[in-house]
Amino acid sequence: MRTRPLKVALLGCGVVGSEVARIMTTHADDLAARIGAPVELAGVAVRRPSKVREGIDPALVTTDATALVKRGDIDVVVEVIGGIEPARTLITTAFEHGASVVSANKALLAQDGAALHAVAEANNKDLYYEAAVAGAIPLIRPLRESLAGDKVNRVLGIVNGTTNFILDKMDSTGAGYQEALDEATALGYAEADPTADVEGFDAAAKAAILAGIAFHTRVRLDDVYREGMTEVTAADFASAKNMGCTIKLLAICERAADGQSVTARVHPAMIPLTHPLASVRGAYNAVFVESDASGQLMFYGPGAGGSPTASAVLGDLVAVCRNRLSGATGPGESAYAALTVSPMGDVVTRYHISLDVADKPGVLAQVATVFAEHGVSIDTVRQQGKDGEASLVVVTHRASDAALVGTVEALRKLDTVRGVASIMRVEGE
Amino acid sequence: MRTRPLKVALLGCGVVGSEVARIMTTHADDLAARIGAPVELAGVAVRRPSKVREGIDPALVTTDATALVKRGDIDVVVEVIGGIEPARTLITTAFEHGASVVSANKALLAQDGAALHAVAEANNKDLYYEAAVAGAIPLIRPLRESLAGDKVNRVLGIVNGTTNFILDKMDSTGAGYQEALDEATALGYAEADPTADVEGFDAAAKAAILAGIAFHTRVRLDDVYREGMTEVTAADFASAKNMGCTIKLLAICERAADGQSVTARVHPAMIPLTHPLASVRGAYNAVFVESDASGQLMFYGPGAGGSPTASAVLGDLVAVCRNRLSGATGPGESAYAALTVSPMGDVVTRYHISLDVADKPGVLAQVATVFAEHGVSIDTVRQQGKDGEASLVVVTHRASDAALVGTVEALRKLDTVRGVASIMRVEGE
Repeated sequence: MRTRPLKVALLGCGVVGSEVARIMTTHADDLAARIGAPVELAGVAVRRPSKVREGIDPALVTTDATALVKRGDIDVVVEVIGGIEPARTLITTAFEHGASVVSANKALLAQDGAALHAVAEANNKDLYYEAAVAGAIPLIRPLRESLAGDKVNRVLGIVNGTTNFILDKMDSTGAGYQEALDEATALGYAEADPTADVEGFDAAAKAAILAGIAFHTRVRLDDVYREGMTEVTAADFASAKNMGCTIKLLAICERAADGQSVTARVHPAMIPLTHPLASVRGAYNAVFVESDASGQLMFYGPGAGGSPTASAVLGDLVAVCRNRLSGATGPGESAYAALTVSPMGDVVTRYHISLDVADKPGVLAQVATVFAEHGVSIDTVRQQGKDGEASLVVVTHRASDAALVGTVEALRKLDTVRGVASIMRVEGE
Repeated sequence: MRTRPLKVALLGCGVVGSEVARIMTTHADDLAARIGAPVELAGVAVRRPSKVREGIDPALVTTDATALVKRGDIDVVVEVIGGIEPARTLITTAFEHGASVVSANKALLAQDGAALHAVAEANNKDLYYEAAVAGAIPLIRPLRESLAGDKVNRVLGIVNGTTNFILDKMDSTGAGYQEALDEATALGYAEADPTADVEGFDAAAKAAILAGIAFHTRVRLDDVYREGMTEVTAADFASAKNMGCTIKLLAICERAADGQSVTARVHPAMIPLTHPLASVRGAYNAVFVESDASGQLMFYGPGAGGSPTASAVLGDLVAVCRNRLSGATGPGESAYAALTVSPMGDVVTRYHISLDVADKPGVLAQVATVFAEHGVSIDTVRQQGKDGEASLVVVTHRASDAALVGTVEALRKLDTVRGVASIMRVEGE
């Protein structure tokens, strides 16, 4: 074994960073055996240097992250700061000064993954980021390596633990959204400002990364259709139960039937209780992958948390260190397929639509005519009357999002339709 | 991109091999893009050369596998023959003549993995075998790369599709073992001679491979305790239901509480219906991994079949070809931890024991005394009488296998115990 250690610079020392540092220290012998050389924590860049960090030599701590990545003797920079800047500039600088990079930064990878890969490649360095998607669940490595000889057609996943906790709670207790969110906040599953989670921004970033890797095509955050789950109601869960379904916030990346374009989207959807994703409880994540040769695979585990995320970072760190020792680099960006990323209007799926309508003769015929005029075929209709008003639940066959949007617009213009109570996509059938 | 192709020799052209050849041809451009150079099928070794093989140039077909691996211009040998010989000699010869190897051969890897790794390393070549365990499910790569910075404590898996199909059928229909086996055979899920599957030999080989990788310790097939599932009865399933459990044939690899030894075993066991493995249906496989930092991960998918296995082979082929191009090798055997592999007697778990006893006063006291004398603590007892006979179901707290075996021996000697109807371990709690 080589005795000269590989030097690691840690950018950020919060929940994940401190756990990375702790494992690097406590499992030093194991890591050395797995890598073939010892690894040494050479510096830790933080914002608040005065904070006491157990187990970390204060002499290693600095507030000057730029100087740390420019040192020139750093083998691997581990970036766990998050956000776009200064992370982007620091990673770029690290590549230019000879380091490879392990990052857990989903927002940055989703927005600027292609540019960062280009800098890594120009400098013949590695950029690994297993921790950016679904925490400890090995997902990026299986997708870009294990399935490298296969053709992925769909990735369907629960990639945000906070929203899954909330939806699971609503499903199992009948609670409303706010009540379930309050509990998630009290238990530490939701942040004080839960916007990034509940509005689907976090999941959309992960969807962009997953779609890019799965389809060998650049997919940016802006390409991902995004709809949050704050408007899901207890009534929606009751409707889902009637359908033998539950509701999950899903990230869905799909290859179109013609194979030449892809879509990526995040929204709440009904999925059948028999689907493996339906039984993913609490804050767990799971990603379902469908491919030509492998059929259906699922990867399940904790999607967040300091230790699981640190495990993913360390797996990458071992791989990158091994690459350094052998003078090689791992798989870089694979965007050769360069498929078209289609807009949401092109997505084809089924819909569950609840309408409040006047309870009088001819209403169903009017509504059915609107669906027919827009080319949306109806699978089932259920009507329930109450005091001159009625609710009409329509479940459609597969139709494009554009056709559905047109249908709903036209429905809203009917005098007999008092309101569109909810529209929910039906997936995983 | 390099234009000179990498040359691949295929050993075996059955269900898996022909699918590998098919995908190599139909997805040639994709593979070239992912590897960075084209791959060319340079030879196919078969036993029956006269058989028509669609899509394979007859000029490539040979019966002389040895000459093929000795050619010297082969970059990668794909071995999908199975069995110990001639596969072992061919793989060794391939390494010695400059090729890396991708294998799907679980029996060989379980028996001679260490020796093959040594030859690979001596020749600075790769030995990859994702397809050897759980078909298309990426499992070996996640274990040896993604979790390379983590400490795995337990691997608990359904790694044989045939037996899972049979047990699932027994569970859902109340069928007996023979009836369910007959259906599995009729549907092609079981072979004409199902011994390797139903007696747990196949699962034991996979357990040896998984334990070796998970614990960085050599674990041979002989180290794995093995018990088949041919004696599981409808009555056992009824007992399991009473416990809120189902029955699965599990491969279980565990690190002992002291961290210094490991065990590996295959046997039927009760697991709670709430455990993610309980809902793995039909011929699917799933492997549950528990580690220090990641917590609980699960990998799920088709465990066998030509296409899924071919997908795993091709993922390895891409990785090995990329390594060839960069002049590097991937992770080799990692056995540095060299933990003791303990015998079955050291395994600690819970037990569900059904006894046929005389229905008279004092029997329960006698039975309870035997358990106490062997240090096996009882959790619950359920007694049911019928015509002077009674059945007694005892569920224990955690105890060593050695203590349990001693208890059962002593129970059999009691006059009041007519017979031990079944002993089933309870796992996953």
